[in-house]
Amino acid sequence: MGPTKKGILERLDAGEIVIGDGGFVFALEKRGYVRAGPWTPEAAAEHPEAVRQLHREFLRAGSNVMQTFTFYASDDKLENRGNKLTFTGVQINEAACDLAHEVAKEGDALVAGGVSQTPSYLSCKSETEVKATFKKQLDVFIKKNVDFLIAEYFEHVEEAAWAVEVLKETGKPVAASLCIGPEGDMHGVPPGECAVRLVKAGAKIVGVNCHFDPLTCVKTVKMMKEGVEKAGLKAHYMVQPLAYHTPDCNCQGFIDLPEFPFGLEPRILTRWDMHKYAREAYNAGIRYIGGCCGFEPYHIRAVSEELAPERGFLPAASEKHGNWGAGLDMHTKPWVRARARREYWENLKPASGRPLCPSMSDPDGWGVTKGHADLIQQKEATSQDQLKQLFDRSKSH
Amino acid sequence: MGPTKKGILERLDAGEIVIGDGGFVFALEKRGYVRAGPWTPEAAAEHPEAVRQLHREFLRAGSNVMQTFTFYASDDKLENRGNKLTFTGVQINEAACDLAHEVAKEGDALVAGGVSQTPSYLSCKSETEVKATFKKQLDVFIKKNVDFLIAEYFEHVEEAAWAVEVLKETGKPVAASLCIGPEGDMHGVPPGECAVRLVKAGAKIVGVNCHFDPLTCVKTVKMMKEGVEKAGLKAHYMVQPLAYHTPDCNCQGFIDLPEFPFGLEPRILTRWDMHKYAREAYNAGIRYIGGCCGFEPYHIRAVSEELAPERGFLPAASEKHGNWGAGLDMHTKPWVRARARREYWENLKPASGRPLCPSMSDPDGWGVTKGHADLIQQKEATSQDQLKQLFDRSKSH
Amino acid sequence: MGPTKKGILERLDAGEIVIGDGGFVFALEKRGYVRAGPWTPEAAAEHPEAVRQLHREFLRAGSNVMQTFTFYASDDKLENRGNKLTFTGVQINEAACDLAHEVAKEGDALVAGGVSQTPSYLSCKSETEVKATFKKQLDVFIKKNVDFLIAEYFEHVEEAAWAVEVLKETGKPVAASLCIGPEGDMHGVPPGECAVRLVKAGAKIVGVNCHFDPLTCVKTVKMMKEGVEKAGLKAHYMVQPLAYHTPDCNCQGFIDLPEFPFGLEPRILTRWDMHKYAREAYNAGIRYIGGCCGFEPYHIRAVSEELAPERGFLPAASEKHGNWGAGLDMHTKPWVRARARREYWENLKPASGRPLCPSMSDPDGWGVTKGHADLIQQKEATSQDQLKQLFDRSKSH
Amino acid sequence: MGPTKKGILERLDAGEIVIGDGGFVFALEKRGYVRAGPWTPEAAAEHPEAVRQLHREFLRAGSNVMQTFTFYASDDKLENRGNKLTFTGVQINEAACDLAHEVAKEGDALVAGGVSQTPSYLSCKSETEVKATFKKQLDVFIKKNVDFLIAEYFEHVEEAAWAVEVLKETGKPVAASLCIGPEGDMHGVPPGECAVRLVKAGAKIVGVNCHFDPLTCVKTVKMMKEGVEKAGLKAHYMVQPLAYHTPDCNCQGFIDLPEFPFGLEPRILTRWDMHKYAREAYNAGIRYIGGCCGFEPYHIRAVSEELAPERGFLPAASEKHGNWGAGLDMHTKPWVRARARREYWENLKPASGRPLCPSMSDPDGWGVTKGHADLIQQKEATSQDQLKQLFDRSKSH
Repeated sequence: MGPTKKGILERLDAGEIVIGDGGFVFALEKRGYVRAGPWTPEAAAEHPEAVRQLHREFLRAGSNVMQTFTFYASDDKLENRGNKLTFTGVQINEAACDLAHEVAKEGDALVAGGVSQTPSYLSCKSETEVKATFKKQLDVFIKKNVDFLIAEYFEHVEEAAWAVEVLKETGKPVAASLCIGPEGDMHGVPPGECAVRLVKAGAKIVGVNCHFDPLTCVKTVKMMKEGVEKAGLKAHYMVQPLAYHTPDCNCQGFIDLPEFPFGLEPRILTRWDMHKYAREAYNAGIRYIGGCCGFEPYHIRAVSEELAPERGFLPAASEKHGNWGAGLDMHTKPWVRARARREYWENLKPASGRPLCPSMSDPDGWGVTKGHADLIQQKEATSQDQLKQLFDRSKSH
Repeated sequence: MGPTKKGILERLDAGEIVIGDGGFVFALEKRGYVRAGPWTPEAAAEHPEAVRQLHREFLRAGSNVMQTFTFYASDDKLENRGNKLTFTGVQINEAACDLAHEVAKEGDALVAGGVSQTPSYLSCKSETEVKATFKKQLDVFIKKNVDFLIAEYFEHVEEAAWAVEVLKETGKPVAASLCIGPEGDMHGVPPGECAVRLVKAGAKIVGVNCHFDPLTCVKTVKMMKEGVEKAGLKAHYMVQPLAYHTPDCNCQGFIDLPEFPFGLEPRILTRWDMHKYAREAYNAGIRYIGGCCGFEPYHIRAVSEELAPERGFLPAASEKHGNWGAGLDMHTKPWVRARARREYWENLKPASGRPLCPSMSDPDGWGVTKGHADLIQQKEATSQDQLKQLFDRSKSH
Repeated sequence: MGPTKKGILERLDAGEIVIGDGGFVFALEKRGYVRAGPWTPEAAAEHPEAVRQLHREFLRAGSNVMQTFTFYASDDKLENRGNKLTFTGVQINEAACDLAHEVAKEGDALVAGGVSQTPSYLSCKSETEVKATFKKQLDVFIKKNVDFLIAEYFEHVEEAAWAVEVLKETGKPVAASLCIGPEGDMHGVPPGECAVRLVKAGAKIVGVNCHFDPLTCVKTVKMMKEGVEKAGLKAHYMVQPLAYHTPDCNCQGFIDLPEFPFGLEPRILTRWDMHKYAREAYNAGIRYIGGCCGFEPYHIRAVSEELAPERGFLPAASEKHGNWGAGLDMHTKPWVRARARREYWENLKPASGRPLCPSMSDPDGWGVTKGHADLIQQKEATSQDQLKQLFDRSKSH
Repeated sequence: MGPTKKGILERLDAGEIVIGDGGFVFALEKRGYVRAGPWTPEAAAEHPEAVRQLHREFLRAGSNVMQTFTFYASDDKLENRGNKLTFTGVQINEAACDLAHEVAKEGDALVAGGVSQTPSYLSCKSETEVKATFKKQLDVFIKKNVDFLIAEYFEHVEEAAWAVEVLKETGKPVAASLCIGPEGDMHGVPPGECAVRLVKAGAKIVGVNCHFDPLTCVKTVKMMKEGVEKAGLKAHYMVQPLAYHTPDCNCQGFIDLPEFPFGLEPRILTRWDMHKYAREAYNAGIRYIGGCCGFEPYHIRAVSEELAPERGFLPAASEKHGNWGAGLDMHTKPWVRARARREYWENLKPASGRPLCPSMSDPDGWGVTKGHADLIQQKEATSQDQLKQLFDRSKSH
């Protein structure tokens, strides 16, 4: 199958839809293999069967890309992690590549090696040092011969551009994805300008992932596309949003919501929400359409099902589904069978079952103000001034 | 490990807490291996790696019971399923037993063979016929030598009692669990009386599973316990509720909610809700505490963590967690680190991010009335009379 | 008009619907004439024009009863009021009677003199003392020759029965109305038994007012009716509920909601909710149908409009309305004109515009627990024990 | 009192706060004197006692302006009204002036004659014709010698400027207020530019009223202020918003909300919301602060109470209130007394008591689309084309 598999750019240049996978750290946190907080991917080495199974489920749901489970797997991040890990950074990155390759071979999927933002950049290390960090992970990706590379989850376009510059030296296609919304990166660079800088740095595919809900992400990528086209440049576009409704986010995205990361359940998108997302992304001219935190295999399947007319086929997992609830026509109760149709699910406004809860949060009231008040009480900061410094620094980065 | 493993009754008699597993059909539907509507478990034979992995995750989360994935695996149900299956009922049941045994051996877990309500009963077959249906599955459980047996998800205590009578002939301990709420079974038999009938039929453990949220289920089991004690009988108690908030259910449980089964996301319990559930169940004198539809491994881990002081140990998966969000103390942002404490998560009222949605549904307005109207429009019933018959029959059963 | 006006019992005996008025203390608090907290009616003497105008608006909306604005106008209550009043109890009661008479004459309305629960009873004064308190107000009602008498807003049936015993000695018809819900009075006497005691004490009309939303009040009066009929007695029934949705009340009613009394706005019933209430009350066999706190003139008009087919006429205020939004057919915008029909308003689920707010409150979490915590902080109670006494006493009364 | 009363510009020039009144058409609709749909003010002549009483309540609540109840009282509007009125336009306008004068004399209030947008403009009459319409009302205001003039509730700045040009010829101070939000007028003219045009036309006070909630209106006036200051002009600023929360409005404001006008109850602002509004308006440099639809006297009192430190006095109605719930310290129940403090009410998130309702609406989904569908069904338009014309015209105007 290897020799006949088309590369990522061949697919996108031909106008094909490429379906990405979902968010590994959140899915594996719920399955018991990832620690929320550090969010590092040592499970690739520690519990390969769990990671392999998740790859398989996304493949089965229609994913054309197996991203190596190497999020936050740079050495500086793994060292910061608090409790010591059994495996080295190289071992974790290699194990992740092997798992992605193993499953990709089982279907029509490419392997993408991924790097993400680094503590080195946030602690103001030099461009040389930050680039050296990316280079280390990259050495593994080259050795393991991944199909293409993704620089993703960057809050600052400057760091993302550095990553692209390092990655493109391999000659492999490079995608670059920021975790920003319509207000731009953490230094206030607007999405259009961010995209231009990434394309100029060498990215062939640009877009956003994580931090915001699907429609906000699609909107942001549209702004990127407008910027790129205005600058007379060319690119392909990708989007891999949250599977959470976040209408109440500030510019930092879901991190600042009081529910992050352990109370996000009421915000999880249904499969029907995913149909709308997939259509919206497609209509915006985006052709690499996947997911990030919160996406489970059935969410990716919904994307595949919505775009089945364009792609010409359903994913394997649809054998256990049926479009728009069709499987319900075999339910024992007639009033449940009556739900086996598109109009029903498209119009449903699902209740939360939580009458004591609001429908939106106030991230600036809680995530920041309240958090700060608590920090003070907990004497983690010895003075208001120190706290302010701490806050200003983390905000400015 | 086999020879030294204590049996289910030994554990309960000794006052130990036994932690159950979560709901396989819902979890595997989201992973792409189960079809909603028929909800049959052919994945045990078709995709053993997926079923094995889910068992492992529950084991790692603290489960002491690996229930064979044999829900709705009676021959009459498998035949009704619509599209033909590749594997026979015996093959599916055997594969499920093998998987449960394989994983149970990896830790301190018992294997429970499970039967559930049958189409035979709902279509008014005789006691002899219904019992013969259970007997077929039972033959596999005996051959595969499961540790104990569970008759679960019964809407009618009569059928459950028949199941218990069949199961107890094996000499293995029998647990019986109804999918009822405080209003009793579908014939209106109250929970206390249901429990008495099940104990008299031979069940050593009685309780409820599915259909209602945790606190409603605990309340129902309390009513069972009162009934059993009032009758001068003795039993152990089990509870395996939904992981969905369902304050708006009618007596049929979550099946009648308009969101069932594809729009339940906003109702999913957080891990912190599970702490409350586990404590409430323990305080009610229930010692077999598990989950049903909607429970993911992290929900069971939360039950294990809440009861760690009583059990004396944490589950394996807690190495990737830390009580009450402790892992967040390594987050890069100080205001997220400030969330690493119990008071924060206990008091959080999580927002739905869905301002256009209500907080409760009206199941009688939508699930039934509206569904019926649609049925009529769709001419699935040739006349109002036929429809009424159809409805009355399914209600009366 | 006076001589031809039919009495309250003549009307009810003839099967007529009698429409009550709305809640004066809440309406006049919002207009600036009543102080929340003491809730006393000195405005009758201080600002007669404001009270007269409100009477007129209810008359115009269809009310057949002008209740004297004498709520909490017993001397013991007026004295407890904190800041000294300019007028005496007799002056206030007399002024209230004059205003009710003046407006009643302008239409087909009767004047009802009203007494309500007293501080004397709550502070454990003797039956003789409590009855003497009622007697003082009654002397004014006799002098001013009201048409009938209402003992309303009693939390304890015992005190209400004492009031009835005093009132009936006048020979005028007596109505008795408790502020209780389905759980009964504050001593736990169920609604059916309460009603029997009131009828036996001499009330010709029994029912409930205030404290709960319309459907809860109708349900409670139904329980009263069942009790009275079971006891082989006869009575007429009245209901004068809140104009607030209170599905989350405990047995103390809306007083314990955290929103009481200054944050109840989101709970206000629409006129369309009132249509449902009026129909429900009528169907329950209740013929004296009015309102209490929160009812504005347009709420009473909606009751009158719903029952216009039975009554045979519309109220005067309907000249400025038109059934079910008919007036909108003159709006300039076509999509607003499209709302001029019953189906639209009957099915509308009105949004709160408050995404940061929940849909229900937890009165036991806030009204009591939180309030107590605050009391402690404020050092109003010198010790926990004193506080407990304080709480137990007010609960027990 | 007349000779010593300071004029509107004297007050504003001196930096005084001028408190406006509330919305008469909505308040009197609920009291039974105004018909929703046409919203005309014939009650001034038909039921002077009701209008007088409402003026008095606003005066008592702290209003410094009695606006003549002449909204939509232009002849072209009164004629369009559907059912014939008993009084002529001149009679209605004169009666309204008399009532405003009568009550203004009872306190420190000015009388403002008001004109509002006309059907003449919407049906594309010429500037001359539209101006003639305003002139007719103006003749009454001159005859009755009002203190100043307000042109308010204009969706198009062009028509408002015409009104200002007519009004300023009297020599009396002119205020101009549009019913627009941050997106500008119905032709898309931004708020800043609208304000400049109004000032250039001769308005001394500019601002917005109606259509949006308080904070949206304050934001819009801020944009006006920035525009005026940027243009090197000078003006005073006024704001008279809705008393409804409308975070979900489109550019047409609350008219397009599905709840308009008969289901807005859950959106009503509490008095505590008004404190925030008053402070926000004051901080924005606005000194004429009042209300429009939904404002009841207690809302204006809350504005007066919030600004009492700046004004140096409380309004008369505060004798029945007490800041921040202070009156509750006389409640009989200790946990209600515990609510008599600012922190409690400022932090309360009031529940709607409506778990089946959403927290926001989708005006474009319902108000327009749905309304149109209905119109078609109702055959009010004979063809799709006619409907489109109808819609386009009303939108374009």
